[in-house]
Amino acid sequence: MSNVETLATHRTQGGTLRYCRHDSASTGTPMKFTMWTPDGEGPFPYLVWLSGLTCTEDNFTTKSGVYAHAARHGVAIVAPDTSPRGEGVADDPAYDLGQGAGFYVDATQAPWAPHFKMYSYVTQDLLEAVDGAFPLDPARRGIFGHSMGGHGALTIALRNPELFKSVSAFSPIVSPLNCPWGEKAMTAYLGPARAAWWAHDATALIEDGAGAAFDEILIDQGLADSFLENQLKPQLIEAAAAKAGRRVTVRRQDGYDHSYFFIATFIGEHMAWHAERL
Amino acid sequence: MSNVETLATHRTQGGTLRYCRHDSASTGTPMKFTMWTPDGEGPFPYLVWLSGLTCTEDNFTTKSGVYAHAARHGVAIVAPDTSPRGEGVADDPAYDLGQGAGFYVDATQAPWAPHFKMYSYVTQDLLEAVDGAFPLDPARRGIFGHSMGGHGALTIALRNPELFKSVSAFSPIVSPLNCPWGEKAMTAYLGPARAAWWAHDATALIEDGAGAAFDEILIDQGLADSFLENQLKPQLIEAAAAKAGRRVTVRRQDGYDHSYFFIATFIGEHMAWHAERL
Repeated sequence: MSNVETLATHRTQGGTLRYCRHDSASTGTPMKFTMWTPDGEGPFPYLVWLSGLTCTEDNFTTKSGVYAHAARHGVAIVAPDTSPRGEGVADDPAYDLGQGAGFYVDATQAPWAPHFKMYSYVTQDLLEAVDGAFPLDPARRGIFGHSMGGHGALTIALRNPELFKSVSAFSPIVSPLNCPWGEKAMTAYLGPARAAWWAHDATALIEDGAGAAFDEILIDQGLADSFLENQLKPQLIEAAAAKAGRRVTVRRQDGYDHSYFFIATFIGEHMAWHAERL
Repeated sequence: MSNVETLATHRTQGGTLRYCRHDSASTGTPMKFTMWTPDGEGPFPYLVWLSGLTCTEDNFTTKSGVYAHAARHGVAIVAPDTSPRGEGVADDPAYDLGQGAGFYVDATQAPWAPHFKMYSYVTQDLLEAVDGAFPLDPARRGIFGHSMGGHGALTIALRNPELFKSVSAFSPIVSPLNCPWGEKAMTAYLGPARAAWWAHDATALIEDGAGAAFDEILIDQGLADSFLENQLKPQLIEAAAAKAGRRVTVRRQDGYDHSYFFIATFIGEHMAWHAERL
Protein backbone atom coordinates (compact mmCIF):
# COMPACT_ATOMS: atom_id res chain seq x y z
CA MET A 1 0.00 0.00 0.00
CA SER A 2 1.11 3.49 -0.76
CA ASN A 3 1.65 6.09 1.94
CA VAL A 4 1.68 9.05 -0.45
CA GLU A 5 0.13 12.20 1.01
CA THR A 6 -1.00 14.97 -1.34
CA LEU A 7 -0.07 18.41 0.05
CA ALA A 8 -1.41 20.57 -2.78
CA THR A 9 -3.07 20.10 -6.15
CA HIS A 10 -3.08 22.38 -9.21
CA ARG A 11 -4.76 21.92 -12.54
CA THR A 12 -2.30 22.73 -15.32
CA GLN A 13 -1.96 22.03 -19.04
CA GLY A 14 -5.06 19.89 -19.08
CA GLY A 15 -3.81 17.57 -16.35
CA THR A 16 -3.30 17.42 -12.59
CA LEU A 17 -0.16 18.43 -10.71
CA ARG A 18 0.26 17.30 -7.12
CA TYR A 19 2.85 18.21 -4.49
CA CYS A 20 3.30 15.03 -2.47
CA ARG A 21 5.11 13.68 0.59
CA HIS A 22 5.82 10.12 1.65
CA ASP A 23 8.01 8.26 4.11
CA SER A 24 11.13 6.75 2.62
CA ALA A 25 12.56 3.63 4.24
CA SER A 26 15.88 4.28 2.46
CA THR A 27 16.47 7.80 3.74
CA GLY A 28 14.54 7.31 6.97
CA THR A 29 12.85 10.67 6.37
CA PRO A 30 9.77 12.09 4.72
CA MET A 31 10.54 12.90 1.07
CA LYS A 32 8.74 15.27 -1.26
CA PHE A 33 8.04 15.03 -4.97
CA THR A 34 5.68 16.44 -7.57
CA MET A 35 3.53 14.28 -9.83
CA TRP A 36 1.75 15.43 -12.98
CA THR A 37 -0.65 13.12 -14.80
CA PRO A 38 -2.73 13.73 -17.91
CA ASP A 39 -6.50 13.44 -17.66
CA GLY A 40 -7.83 9.94 -18.30
CA GLU A 41 -7.55 6.53 -16.75
CA GLY A 42 -4.06 5.54 -17.80
CA PRO A 43 -1.92 3.66 -17.17
CA PHE A 44 0.42 6.36 -18.50
CA PRO A 45 4.04 6.06 -19.56
CA TYR A 46 6.12 8.32 -17.33
CA LEU A 47 9.39 10.11 -16.85
CA VAL A 48 11.38 10.63 -13.65
CA TRP A 49 13.14 14.01 -13.56
CA LEU A 50 16.19 14.43 -11.28
CA SER A 51 17.16 17.99 -10.42
CA GLY A 52 20.53 19.61 -9.83
CA LEU A 53 22.39 21.18 -6.93
CA THR A 54 20.35 23.40 -4.57
CA CYS A 55 17.04 22.36 -6.13
CA THR A 56 13.96 20.93 -4.45
CA GLU A 57 10.99 19.25 -6.13
CA ASP A 58 9.77 22.74 -7.04
CA ASN A 59 12.35 24.11 -9.49
CA PHE A 60 11.64 21.86 -12.47
CA THR A 61 7.94 21.91 -11.64
CA THR A 62 7.60 25.68 -11.87
CA LYS A 63 10.34 26.65 -14.34
CA SER A 64 10.77 24.02 -17.05
CA GLY A 65 7.51 24.35 -18.94
CA VAL A 66 7.51 20.54 -19.24
CA TYR A 67 3.80 19.90 -18.69
CA ALA A 68 2.66 21.47 -21.97
CA HIS A 69 4.86 18.94 -23.76
CA ALA A 70 3.93 16.10 -21.41
CA ALA A 71 0.27 16.77 -22.21
CA ARG A 72 0.99 16.64 -25.95
CA HIS A 73 2.55 13.19 -25.57
CA GLY A 74 0.34 11.80 -22.80
CA VAL A 75 3.35 11.18 -20.55
CA ALA A 76 3.23 11.61 -16.76
CA ILE A 77 6.11 13.31 -14.90
CA VAL A 78 7.49 12.76 -11.39
CA ALA A 79 10.13 15.10 -9.92
CA PRO A 80 11.58 14.31 -6.47
CA ASP A 81 13.56 16.48 -4.09
CA THR A 82 17.37 16.22 -4.35
CA SER A 83 18.15 15.00 -0.83
CA PRO A 84 16.72 14.13 2.56
CA ARG A 85 16.06 17.20 4.69
CA GLY A 86 14.96 18.25 8.12
CA GLU A 87 15.98 17.99 11.73
CA GLY A 88 18.50 15.29 12.48
CA VAL A 89 19.66 15.17 8.85
CA ALA A 90 23.32 16.13 8.36
CA ASP A 91 24.09 19.24 6.34
CA ASP A 92 26.96 21.41 5.17
CA PRO A 93 26.99 25.17 4.60
CA ALA A 94 28.34 24.71 1.05
CA TYR A 95 25.75 24.56 -1.76
CA ASP A 96 27.36 21.48 -3.26
CA LEU A 97 27.29 19.11 -0.27
CA GLY A 98 24.58 17.87 2.08
CA GLN A 99 20.96 18.93 1.83
CA GLY A 100 20.08 19.85 -1.74
CA ALA A 101 23.14 17.95 -2.98
CA GLY A 102 22.49 14.23 -2.52
CA PHE A 103 24.27 13.24 -5.76
CA TYR A 104 22.03 10.16 -6.11
CA VAL A 105 24.39 7.85 -4.22
CA ASP A 106 24.02 5.77 -1.04
CA ALA A 107 26.43 7.37 1.41
CA THR A 108 28.71 5.09 3.42
CA GLN A 109 30.57 7.78 5.36
CA ALA A 110 29.81 9.79 8.51
CA PRO A 111 27.88 11.99 8.99
CA TRP A 112 25.98 11.24 5.76
CA ALA A 113 25.41 7.48 5.91
CA PRO A 114 22.23 7.44 8.06
CA HIS A 115 20.01 9.41 5.63
CA PHE A 116 21.80 10.19 2.36
CA LYS A 117 20.57 7.16 0.41
CA MET A 118 19.31 8.88 -2.72
CA TYR A 119 20.31 6.03 -5.06
CA SER A 120 18.09 3.59 -3.18
CA TYR A 121 15.43 6.23 -2.72
CA VAL A 122 15.05 6.88 -6.43
CA THR A 123 15.41 3.31 -7.65
CA GLN A 124 13.20 1.74 -4.97
CA ASP A 125 11.08 3.93 -2.66
CA LEU A 126 10.12 6.61 -5.16
CA LEU A 127 9.23 4.21 -7.96
CA GLU A 128 7.25 1.94 -5.63
CA ALA A 129 5.39 4.91 -4.18
CA VAL A 130 4.34 6.47 -7.46
CA ASP A 131 3.59 3.14 -9.14
CA GLY A 132 1.33 2.32 -6.20
CA ALA A 133 -0.41 5.66 -5.94
CA PHE A 134 -0.93 6.80 -9.56
CA PRO A 135 -2.11 5.23 -12.85
CA LEU A 136 1.39 4.69 -14.27
CA ASP A 137 2.81 1.98 -16.49
CA PRO A 138 6.11 0.80 -14.93
CA ALA A 139 6.99 -0.96 -18.19
CA ARG A 140 7.08 2.42 -19.98
CA ARG A 141 9.30 4.46 -17.68
CA GLY A 142 12.14 6.83 -18.62
CA ILE A 143 14.46 9.13 -16.69
CA PHE A 144 16.15 12.47 -17.28
CA GLY A 145 17.74 15.27 -15.29
CA HIS A 146 19.95 18.32 -15.12
CA SER A 147 23.55 18.78 -13.96
CA MET A 148 23.85 16.71 -10.73
CA GLY A 149 20.48 15.27 -11.75
CA GLY A 150 21.79 14.52 -15.23
CA HIS A 151 24.53 12.54 -13.51
CA GLY A 152 21.84 10.82 -11.44
CA ALA A 153 19.70 9.99 -14.47
CA LEU A 154 22.62 8.62 -16.49
CA THR A 155 24.16 6.51 -13.72
CA ILE A 156 20.83 5.18 -12.43
CA ALA A 157 19.65 4.26 -15.93
CA LEU A 158 22.95 2.67 -16.97
CA ARG A 159 22.92 0.49 -13.84
CA ASN A 160 19.20 -0.33 -14.04
CA PRO A 161 18.25 -0.71 -17.69
CA GLU A 162 15.45 -3.05 -16.62
CA LEU A 163 13.77 -0.12 -14.85
CA PHE A 164 14.02 2.47 -17.63
CA LYS A 165 13.43 2.41 -21.38
CA SER A 166 15.03 5.78 -22.12
CA VAL A 167 17.48 8.24 -20.58
CA SER A 168 18.52 11.77 -21.47
CA ALA A 169 20.22 14.67 -19.70
CA PHE A 170 20.76 18.42 -19.72
CA SER A 171 24.31 19.60 -18.95
CA PRO A 172 25.08 16.50 -16.84
CA ILE A 173 28.11 15.86 -14.68
CA VAL A 174 29.29 12.97 -16.87
CA SER A 175 32.27 11.98 -14.72
CA PRO A 176 32.37 12.72 -10.98
CA LEU A 177 35.79 11.02 -11.01
CA ASN A 178 37.05 13.92 -13.08
CA CYS A 179 35.62 17.15 -11.72
CA PRO A 180 35.69 19.17 -8.49
CA TRP A 181 31.98 18.75 -7.71
CA GLY A 182 32.28 14.99 -8.07
CA GLU A 183 35.54 14.66 -6.17
CA LYS A 184 34.18 16.63 -3.24
CA ALA A 185 30.84 14.85 -3.03
CA MET A 186 32.10 11.33 -3.68
CA THR A 187 34.88 11.75 -1.12
CA ALA A 188 32.37 12.95 1.46
CA TYR A 189 29.66 10.37 0.76
CA LEU A 190 31.66 7.32 -0.37
CA GLY A 191 35.14 7.91 1.09
CA PRO A 192 38.47 8.59 -0.56
CA ALA A 193 38.87 5.16 -2.21
CA ARG A 194 37.99 5.99 -5.81
CA ALA A 195 37.05 2.41 -6.68
CA ALA A 196 33.77 3.02 -4.85
CA TRP A 197 33.01 5.95 -7.12
CA TRP A 198 33.04 4.05 -10.40
CA ALA A 199 29.51 2.75 -10.05
CA HIS A 200 28.39 6.39 -9.89
CA ASP A 201 30.34 7.67 -12.88
CA ALA A 202 28.41 7.62 -16.17
CA THR A 203 31.57 7.70 -18.26
CA ALA A 204 33.11 4.78 -16.37
CA LEU A 205 29.84 2.84 -16.63
CA ILE A 206 29.78 3.33 -20.42
CA GLU A 207 33.41 2.17 -20.59
CA ASP A 208 32.41 -0.93 -18.64
CA GLY A 209 29.54 -1.72 -21.03
CA ALA A 210 26.67 -0.93 -18.66
CA GLY A 211 23.26 -0.16 -20.12
CA ALA A 212 24.04 -1.38 -23.62
CA ALA A 213 20.30 -1.87 -24.17
CA PHE A 214 19.75 1.88 -24.66
CA ASP A 215 19.75 2.57 -28.41
CA GLU A 216 20.82 6.18 -27.79
CA ILE A 217 21.50 8.55 -24.92
CA LEU A 218 20.60 12.19 -25.62
CA ILE A 219 22.50 15.05 -23.96
CA ASP A 220 22.01 18.78 -24.47
CA GLN A 221 24.80 21.08 -23.34
CA GLY A 222 24.88 24.89 -23.49
CA LEU A 223 28.12 26.37 -24.77
CA ALA A 224 27.79 29.47 -22.55
CA ASP A 225 27.49 27.24 -19.47
CA SER A 226 30.02 28.51 -16.92
CA PHE A 227 30.47 24.97 -15.55
CA LEU A 228 31.21 23.38 -18.94
CA GLU A 229 35.00 23.27 -18.86
CA ASN A 230 35.72 22.53 -15.20
CA GLN A 231 32.77 20.40 -14.12
CA LEU A 232 30.69 18.96 -16.97
CA LYS A 233 33.18 17.89 -19.69
CA PRO A 234 30.81 16.08 -22.07
CA GLN A 235 33.78 15.10 -24.24
CA LEU A 236 34.63 12.45 -21.64
CA ILE A 237 31.41 10.50 -22.16
CA GLU A 238 31.63 11.02 -25.93
CA ALA A 239 35.10 9.47 -25.94
CA ALA A 240 33.97 6.55 -23.80
CA ALA A 241 30.97 5.97 -26.06
CA ALA A 242 33.09 6.07 -29.19
CA LYS A 243 35.49 3.51 -27.69
CA ALA A 244 32.64 1.24 -26.55
CA GLY A 245 30.70 1.57 -29.80
CA ARG A 246 27.76 3.22 -28.03
CA ARG A 247 25.54 6.03 -29.26
CA VAL A 248 25.71 9.05 -26.96
CA THR A 249 24.50 12.15 -28.79
CA VAL A 250 25.79 15.41 -27.30
CA ARG A 251 24.11 18.46 -28.82
CA ARG A 252 26.10 21.63 -28.11
CA GLN A 253 23.77 24.64 -28.00
CA ASP A 254 25.40 27.95 -28.86
CA GLY A 255 24.83 30.76 -26.37
CA TYR A 256 22.85 28.76 -23.80
CA ASP A 257 23.88 28.67 -20.14
CA HIS A 258 23.27 26.34 -17.17
CA SER A 259 19.88 27.78 -16.19
CA TYR A 260 16.27 26.68 -16.51
CA PHE A 261 16.01 29.11 -19.44
CA PHE A 262 18.19 26.58 -21.27
CA ILE A 263 16.21 23.58 -20.05
CA ALA A 264 12.88 25.19 -21.00
CA THR A 265 14.15 25.75 -24.53
CA PHE A 266 14.92 22.09 -25.25
CA ILE A 267 12.58 20.24 -22.89
CA GLY A 268 10.04 19.80 -25.68
CA GLU A 269 12.58 17.98 -27.83
CA HIS A 270 13.56 15.73 -24.93
CA MET A 271 9.90 14.92 -24.28
CA ALA A 272 9.36 13.99 -27.93
CA TRP A 273 12.53 11.89 -27.92
CA HIS A 274 11.44 9.97 -24.80
CA ALA A 275 7.84 9.62 -26.01
CA GLU A 276 9.11 7.80 -29.11
CA ARG A 277 10.82 5.27 -26.87
CA LEU A 278 8.15 4.74 -24.20
CA MET B 1 18.89 58.55 -24.27
CA SER B 2 18.29 55.35 -22.42
CA ASN B 3 19.86 54.63 -19.05
CA VAL B 4 19.01 50.93 -19.10
CA GLU B 5 21.62 48.73 -17.43
CA THR B 6 21.69 45.02 -18.21
CA LEU B 7 22.31 42.97 -15.05
CA ALA B 8 22.18 39.48 -16.57
CA THR B 9 21.53 37.90 -19.94
CA HIS B 10 20.23 34.42 -20.80
CA ARG B 11 19.63 32.84 -24.15
CA THR B 12 16.21 31.16 -24.19
CA GLN B 13 13.72 29.94 -26.81
CA GLY B 14 15.86 31.21 -29.66
CA GLY B 15 15.97 34.76 -28.31
CA THR B 16 17.65 36.86 -25.64
CA LEU B 17 16.34 37.50 -22.13
CA ARG B 18 17.82 40.34 -20.11
CA TYR B 19 17.36 41.34 -16.48
CA CYS B 20 17.58 45.15 -16.52
CA ARG B 21 17.61 48.13 -14.17
CA HIS B 22 17.02 51.81 -14.88
CA ASP B 23 16.32 54.99 -12.95
CA SER B 24 12.69 56.06 -12.94
CA ALA B 25 11.91 59.77 -12.64
CA SER B 26 8.34 58.89 -11.62
CA THR B 27 9.20 56.63 -8.69
CA GLY B 28 12.50 58.34 -7.91
CA THR B 29 14.08 54.91 -7.54
CA PRO B 30 15.89 52.37 -9.65
CA MET B 31 13.35 49.97 -11.19
CA LYS B 32 13.90 46.47 -12.53
CA PHE B 33 12.33 44.68 -15.48
CA THR B 34 13.04 41.78 -17.80
CA MET B 35 13.13 42.09 -21.57
CA TRP B 36 12.99 39.24 -24.06
CA THR B 37 13.53 39.85 -27.76
CA PRO B 38 13.57 37.39 -30.66
CA ASP B 39 16.72 37.13 -32.78
CA GLY B 40 16.85 39.54 -35.70
CA GLU B 41 16.89 43.26 -36.26
CA GLY B 42 13.30 44.15 -35.47
CA PRO B 43 11.59 46.43 -34.81
CA PHE B 44 9.41 43.88 -32.99
CA PRO B 45 5.85 44.23 -31.80
CA TYR B 46 5.80 43.80 -28.04
CA LEU B 47 3.73 43.10 -24.98
CA VAL B 48 4.02 44.59 -21.51
CA TRP B 49 3.22 42.10 -18.74
CA LEU B 50 2.12 43.41 -15.34
CA SER B 51 2.42 40.98 -12.43
CA GLY B 52 0.30 40.48 -9.34
CA LEU B 53 0.69 40.96 -5.60
CA THR B 54 4.04 39.90 -4.08
CA CYS B 55 5.66 39.44 -7.49
CA THR B 56 8.86 40.96 -8.84
CA GLU B 57 10.04 41.04 -12.45
CA ASP B 58 11.12 37.43 -11.97
CA ASN B 59 7.88 35.46 -11.44
CA PHE B 60 6.39 35.73 -14.92
CA THR B 61 9.86 35.48 -16.43
CA THR B 62 10.65 32.10 -14.87
CA LYS B 63 7.22 30.50 -14.46
CA SER B 64 4.90 31.43 -17.32
CA GLY B 65 6.54 29.64 -20.24
CA VAL B 66 5.71 32.72 -22.34
CA TYR B 67 8.90 32.90 -24.40
CA ALA B 68 8.25 29.73 -26.39
CA HIS B 69 5.03 31.35 -27.61
CA ALA B 70 6.63 34.78 -28.02
CA ALA B 71 9.24 33.17 -30.28
CA ARG B 72 6.53 31.53 -32.38
CA HIS B 73 4.88 34.90 -33.00
CA GLY B 74 8.00 37.08 -33.12
CA VAL B 75 6.72 39.26 -30.28
CA ALA B 76 9.03 40.79 -27.63
CA ILE B 77 8.03 40.80 -23.94
CA VAL B 78 8.80 43.27 -21.15
CA ALA B 79 7.90 42.48 -17.52
CA PRO B 80 8.52 45.13 -14.84
CA ASP B 81 8.62 44.84 -11.07
CA THR B 82 5.35 45.57 -9.23
CA SER B 83 6.49 48.53 -7.10
CA PRO B 84 9.41 50.74 -6.12
CA ARG B 85 11.66 49.10 -3.54
CA GLY B 86 14.67 49.77 -1.40
CA GLU B 87 15.83 51.96 1.43
CA GLY B 88 13.74 55.06 1.96
CA VAL B 89 10.74 53.53 0.17
CA ALA B 90 7.67 53.10 2.38
CA ASP B 91 6.44 49.58 3.07
CA ASP B 92 3.84 47.63 5.01
CA PRO B 93 4.14 44.18 6.56
CA ALA B 94 0.98 43.00 4.74
CA TYR B 95 1.46 41.27 1.39
CA ASP B 96 -1.23 43.40 -0.25
CA LEU B 97 0.12 46.89 0.46
CA GLY B 98 3.41 48.66 -0.14
CA GLN B 99 6.40 47.03 -1.79
CA GLY B 100 5.25 44.30 -4.17
CA ALA B 101 1.75 45.81 -4.23
CA GLY B 102 1.91 49.09 -6.16
CA PHE B 103 -1.54 48.59 -7.77
CA TYR B 104 -0.45 50.63 -10.82
CA VAL B 105 -1.69 53.95 -9.43
CA ASP B 106 0.05 57.26 -8.61
CA ALA B 107 -0.26 57.54 -4.83
CA THR B 108 -1.35 60.88 -3.39
CA GLN B 109 -1.34 59.89 0.29
CA ALA B 110 1.41 59.64 2.92
CA PRO B 111 3.63 57.71 3.28
CA TRP B 112 3.21 56.39 -0.28
CA ALA B 113 3.13 59.54 -2.40
CA PRO B 114 6.89 60.12 -2.81
CA HIS B 115 7.67 56.84 -4.64
CA PHE B 116 4.49 54.83 -5.39
CA LYS B 117 3.88 56.22 -8.89
CA MET B 118 3.43 52.97 -10.79
CA TYR B 119 0.83 54.38 -13.19
CA SER B 120 3.25 57.01 -14.43
CA TYR B 121 6.12 54.54 -14.30
CA VAL B 122 4.45 52.04 -16.62
CA THR B 123 2.86 54.52 -19.02
CA GLN B 124 5.90 56.80 -19.29
CA ASP B 125 9.28 55.78 -17.87
CA LEU B 126 9.11 52.07 -18.69
CA LEU B 127 7.85 52.54 -22.25
CA GLU B 128 10.38 55.30 -22.97
CA ALA B 129 13.20 53.21 -21.56
CA VAL B 130 12.47 50.05 -23.51
CA ASP B 131 11.56 51.88 -26.72
CA GLY B 132 14.90 53.67 -26.48
CA ALA B 133 17.03 50.67 -25.60
CA PHE B 134 15.63 47.79 -27.68
CA PRO B 135 14.45 47.25 -31.28
CA LEU B 136 10.73 47.60 -30.52
CA ASP B 137 7.87 49.03 -32.54
CA PRO B 138 5.87 51.38 -30.27
CA ALA B 139 3.02 51.35 -32.79
CA ARG B 140 2.52 47.62 -32.19
CA ARG B 141 2.38 47.42 -28.41
CA GLY B 142 -0.04 45.44 -26.24
CA ILE B 143 -0.43 44.86 -22.53
CA PHE B 144 -1.56 42.02 -20.28
CA GLY B 145 -1.24 40.93 -16.68
CA HIS B 146 -2.42 38.81 -13.76
CA SER B 147 -4.61 39.64 -10.77
CA MET B 148 -3.39 43.06 -9.52
CA GLY B 149 -1.47 43.19 -12.80
CA GLY B 150 -4.62 42.30 -14.73
CA HIS B 151 -6.22 45.31 -13.06
CA GLY B 152 -3.17 47.34 -14.08
CA ALA B 153 -3.29 46.16 -17.70
CA LEU B 154 -7.02 46.80 -18.06
CA THR B 155 -7.06 50.25 -16.46
CA ILE B 156 -3.88 51.44 -18.16
CA ALA B 157 -5.05 50.26 -21.59
CA LEU B 158 -8.58 51.64 -21.21
CA ARG B 159 -7.17 55.07 -20.28
CA ASN B 160 -4.41 55.01 -22.90
CA PRO B 161 -5.77 53.33 -26.04
CA GLU B 162 -3.29 55.37 -28.10
CA LEU B 163 -0.44 53.50 -26.37
CA PHE B 164 -1.75 49.93 -26.73
CA LYS B 165 -3.39 48.01 -29.56
CA SER B 166 -4.51 45.05 -27.44
CA VAL B 167 -5.22 44.16 -23.83
CA SER B 168 -5.95 40.89 -22.03
CA ALA B 169 -5.83 39.64 -18.46
CA PHE B 170 -5.65 36.55 -16.27
CA SER B 171 -7.89 36.55 -13.18
CA PRO B 172 -7.86 40.36 -12.94
CA ILE B 173 -9.20 42.52 -10.14
CA VAL B 174 -11.89 44.05 -12.36
CA SER B 175 -13.26 46.49 -9.79
CA PRO B 176 -11.11 47.78 -6.90
CA LEU B 177 -14.18 49.79 -5.86
CA ASN B 178 -15.89 46.51 -5.03
CA CYS B 179 -13.38 44.20 -3.34
CA PRO B 180 -11.30 44.15 -0.15
CA TRP B 181 -7.92 44.25 -1.95
CA GLY B 182 -9.01 47.30 -3.90
CA GLU B 183 -10.63 49.10 -1.00
CA LYS B 184 -7.55 48.67 1.15
CA ALA B 185 -5.03 49.72 -1.50
CA MET B 186 -7.02 52.60 -2.99
CA THR B 187 -7.76 54.01 0.48
CA ALA B 188 -4.08 53.87 1.35
CA TYR B 189 -2.71 55.22 -1.94
CA LEU B 190 -5.50 57.59 -3.08
CA GLY B 191 -7.38 58.42 0.11
CA PRO B 192 -10.89 57.57 1.27
CA ALA B 193 -12.73 59.70 -1.32
CA ARG B 194 -13.91 57.04 -3.75
CA ALA B 195 -14.25 59.45 -6.66
CA ALA B 196 -10.46 59.32 -7.01
CA TRP B 197 -10.61 55.55 -7.44
CA TRP B 198 -12.83 55.53 -10.54
CA ALA B 199 -9.98 56.20 -12.95
CA HIS B 200 -8.37 53.01 -11.62
CA ASP B 201 -11.40 50.73 -11.85
CA ALA B 202 -11.71 48.81 -15.12
CA THR B 203 -15.42 48.22 -14.66
CA ALA B 204 -16.11 51.91 -14.03
CA LEU B 205 -13.95 52.85 -17.03
CA ILE B 206 -15.94 50.52 -19.28
CA GLU B 207 -19.16 52.03 -17.95
CA ASP B 208 -17.79 55.47 -18.82
CA GLY B 209 -16.95 54.43 -22.38
CA ALA B 210 -13.16 54.47 -22.03
CA GLY B 211 -11.07 52.50 -24.52
CA ALA B 212 -13.88 51.88 -26.99
CA ALA B 213 -11.26 51.38 -29.71
CA PHE B 214 -10.43 47.88 -28.44
CA ASP B 215 -12.44 45.39 -30.53
CA GLU B 216 -12.33 42.84 -27.70
CA ILE B 217 -10.86 42.40 -24.25
CA LEU B 218 -9.90 38.83 -23.37
CA ILE B 219 -10.01 37.56 -19.78
CA ASP B 220 -9.26 34.06 -18.50
CA GLN B 221 -10.48 33.16 -15.03
CA GLY B 222 -10.00 29.87 -13.18
CA LEU B 223 -13.08 28.54 -11.44
CA ALA B 224 -11.03 26.98 -8.61
CA ASP B 225 -9.45 30.38 -7.89
CA SER B 226 -9.84 31.01 -4.14
CA PHE B 227 -10.05 34.78 -4.80
CA LEU B 228 -12.81 34.54 -7.39
CA GLU B 229 -15.85 35.32 -5.26
CA ASN B 230 -14.51 37.91 -2.84
CA GLN B 231 -11.89 39.77 -4.85
CA LEU B 232 -12.06 39.17 -8.62
CA LYS B 233 -15.79 39.13 -9.55
CA PRO B 234 -15.51 39.06 -13.35
CA GLN B 235 -19.31 39.30 -13.60
CA LEU B 236 -18.99 43.00 -12.75
CA ILE B 237 -16.99 43.84 -15.89
CA GLU B 238 -19.21 41.55 -17.97
CA ALA B 239 -22.30 43.44 -16.82
CA ALA B 240 -20.69 46.79 -17.51
CA ALA B 241 -19.62 45.64 -20.98
CA ALA B 242 -23.10 44.33 -21.78
CA LYS B 243 -24.61 47.64 -20.76
CA ALA B 244 -22.06 49.65 -22.73
CA GLY B 245 -22.24 47.42 -25.79
CA ARG B 246 -18.60 46.42 -25.47
CA ARG B 247 -17.00 43.03 -26.09
CA VAL B 248 -15.32 41.67 -22.97
CA THR B 249 -14.83 37.91 -23.27
CA VAL B 250 -14.48 36.13 -19.93
CA ARG B 251 -13.46 32.49 -20.33
CA ARG B 252 -14.13 30.52 -17.16
CA GLN B 253 -11.68 27.63 -16.87
CA ASP B 254 -12.89 24.68 -14.87
CA GLY B 255 -10.55 23.44 -12.12
CA TYR B 256 -7.86 26.11 -12.55
CA ASP B 257 -6.65 28.21 -9.62
CA HIS B 258 -4.88 31.58 -9.20
CA SER B 259 -1.34 30.27 -9.74
CA TYR B 260 1.22 30.41 -12.54
CA PHE B 261 0.18 26.84 -13.38
CA PHE B 262 -3.05 28.42 -14.62
CA ILE B 263 -1.27 31.24 -16.46
CA ALA B 264 1.17 28.83 -18.13
CA THR B 265 -1.74 26.79 -19.45
CA PHE B 266 -3.41 29.64 -21.34
CA ILE B 267 -0.49 32.00 -22.04
CA GLY B 268 -0.08 30.54 -25.52
CA GLU B 269 -3.67 31.41 -26.41
CA HIS B 270 -3.22 34.96 -25.11
CA MET B 271 -0.02 35.35 -27.14
CA ALA B 272 -1.78 34.20 -30.31
CA TRP B 273 -4.71 36.52 -29.57
CA HIS B 274 -2.43 39.53 -29.11
CA ALA B 275 -0.25 38.61 -32.11
CA GLU B 276 -3.33 38.79 -34.34
CA ARG B 277 -3.91 42.37 -33.19
CA LEU B 278 -0.33 43.71 -33.20
